[in-house]
Amino acid sequence: MSSLVVGSVALDTVETPYGRADDALGGTAVYFSLAASLFTAVQLVGVVGDDFPESGIELLRSRGVDLAGLQRRQGETFRWVGEYHHDMNVAHTLDTRLNVFETFHPTIPESYRDAEFVFLGNIDPELQLEVLRQVRQPKLTTLDTMNFWIERKRDALTEVIQRVDAVLINDAEIREYTGCYNVLKAASQLQDAGPRYIIVKRGEYGAILFAGDDIFLVPAFPTWDVRDTTGAGDSFAGGFLGYLDRCSSVNPPDLRAAVVYGTVLASFTVEDFSVRGLERADSAGMHERYGRMAAITRVDAAAPTVQRDLVREGV
Amino acid sequence: MSSLVVGSVALDTVETPYGRADDALGGTAVYFSLAASLFTAVQLVGVVGDDFPESGIELLRSRGVDLAGLQRRQGETFRWVGEYHHDMNVAHTLDTRLNVFETFHPTIPESYRDAEFVFLGNIDPELQLEVLRQVRQPKLTTLDTMNFWIERKRDALTEVIQRVDAVLINDAEIREYTGCYNVLKAASQLQDAGPRYIIVKRGEYGAILFAGDDIFLVPAFPTWDVRDTTGAGDSFAGGFLGYLDRCSSVNPPDLRAAVVYGTVLASFTVEDFSVRGLERADSAGMHERYGRMAAITRVDAAAPTVQRDLVREGV
Repeated sequence: MSSLVVGSVALDTVETPYGRADDALGGTAVYFSLAASLFTAVQLVGVVGDDFPESGIELLRSRGVDLAGLQRRQGETFRWVGEYHHDMNVAHTLDTRLNVFETFHPTIPESYRDAEFVFLGNIDPELQLEVLRQVRQPKLTTLDTMNFWIERKRDALTEVIQRVDAVLINDAEIREYTGCYNVLKAASQLQDAGPRYIIVKRGEYGAILFAGDDIFLVPAFPTWDVRDTTGAGDSFAGGFLGYLDRCSSVNPPDLRAAVVYGTVLASFTVEDFSVRGLERADSAGMHERYGRMAAITRVDAAAPTVQRDLVREGV
Repeated sequence: MSSLVVGSVALDTVETPYGRADDALGGTAVYFSLAASLFTAVQLVGVVGDDFPESGIELLRSRGVDLAGLQRRQGETFRWVGEYHHDMNVAHTLDTRLNVFETFHPTIPESYRDAEFVFLGNIDPELQLEVLRQVRQPKLTTLDTMNFWIERKRDALTEVIQRVDAVLINDAEIREYTGCYNVLKAASQLQDAGPRYIIVKRGEYGAILFAGDDIFLVPAFPTWDVRDTTGAGDSFAGGFLGYLDRCSSVNPPDLRAAVVYGTVLASFTVEDFSVRGLERADSAGMHERYGRMAAITRVDAAAPTVQRDLVREGV
């Protein structure tokens, strides 16, 4: 039982209408690891500079995250500066400094190569392919991507898409990649290219899972205080893969539960800046929100008027 | 058992990326009536000019809609000209000609005044108040509104909101009216003003019902071909109130089922221009979609990891 994540480890400076954080712990691999570690053993592959705070390392270690694949280089850690307005579905990037991430190549330690669940964070699709060449027999490979790669590395991205089992993508991106506005059609087109599972992330509107012929629509967990949505998608991925790894299964019911846990982990993340919301997440709180998700979405399959006789005669 | 609707009867000219319709049957009262008539007897209050096509009258009659409250005036029927781009959550108005609707005052026929379920379509809140003064003991009064009235008739709108049982409103509008971006907070603020039930419509992302402390989130019915979203909200209202009227109940489980039927009726409407999609809706198709809504949203309350022992020890 182990989940491997390859992605950015970052120091983020973020401003939203609800506050700001400076050079705070962030990045795909960090959010993913903290979320997935509630379920399973996580193996992290990424790179940091010599300015990376020891407290970040300690936090990951305290959650049992294996850092054998974390490269340490001279220079500065990847930095992202962004802001959100009231519509926190949309991040506005003010500055991106790749720093040590610019020359990063993922080297998968021997001890990671039998990982069963593999998450290819939103990095250059050519690096994602490098990861796939190094792992042996994963049960489930999943990729995330973004408009930057869709526009600049489309061929490489298409090659990764053809090789992975699952694609996590947001609605604007799947529309851009497929050229298809209707999300059902776009997902169907993407499934035809290879991946058995497509998860479309819709920010505050939740997510859609396409698994074979099964479609599952789930709202975001309703949150009273959304302060910073950075890392929500990566936390979703961590909850999703971590849960599946824990079950050691990718059956449709487990996939649905995994999407709900992804949603729940994302909800903790958005409640505070950086990883502070996720740090507060524990198994009791997580299960409480899972149960609440079941309650607030419950449609009674046997509603009274489903019986024909309740409907107006002669229509 | 009867549902009363007061609202526009219109001839709409609409263009979308999927086609267009010219001077086609539309308006709140028409969409509402066709949807609600699948469940109950509908009483319509509105106005048309002498150019209104007899086929429109016949269609409403064929669904058993009572037209005693439909005023006929010399002049032209209300006309709306609009277009949608790919994002069909947003209508772009090109022209609005109120015509006979400009001087409309709702006169509720004596035979309508005992209506149990009352829908105040999106009209001047002062006219909505006129309606409330004429009905006797409705079980549930519901209003819809729009940005135009929020900006121009805020005091009158607030007075109606304080008097109705339920408010149907879209997410942009509830944010504008309350000045509160978070929809949970906005709905709570609106409930404090009086209405027991708030239904926030989110277009392709579905709807949220706030009923006392109960929150229910439901996605839109996933539709492969969305051709024209005009009338979706009014069809939702028709399905919602029609269902409750049929049950003669406003218990929480019935409210949830009513929201699902609203969602289902809206899905028929968006599949074609004007009322053509709604004309094709029948009880079998409606129940089939209701069942499908239950299936595609089902979250297993007893997912394996909800059992504590499946979660990583020591976290």
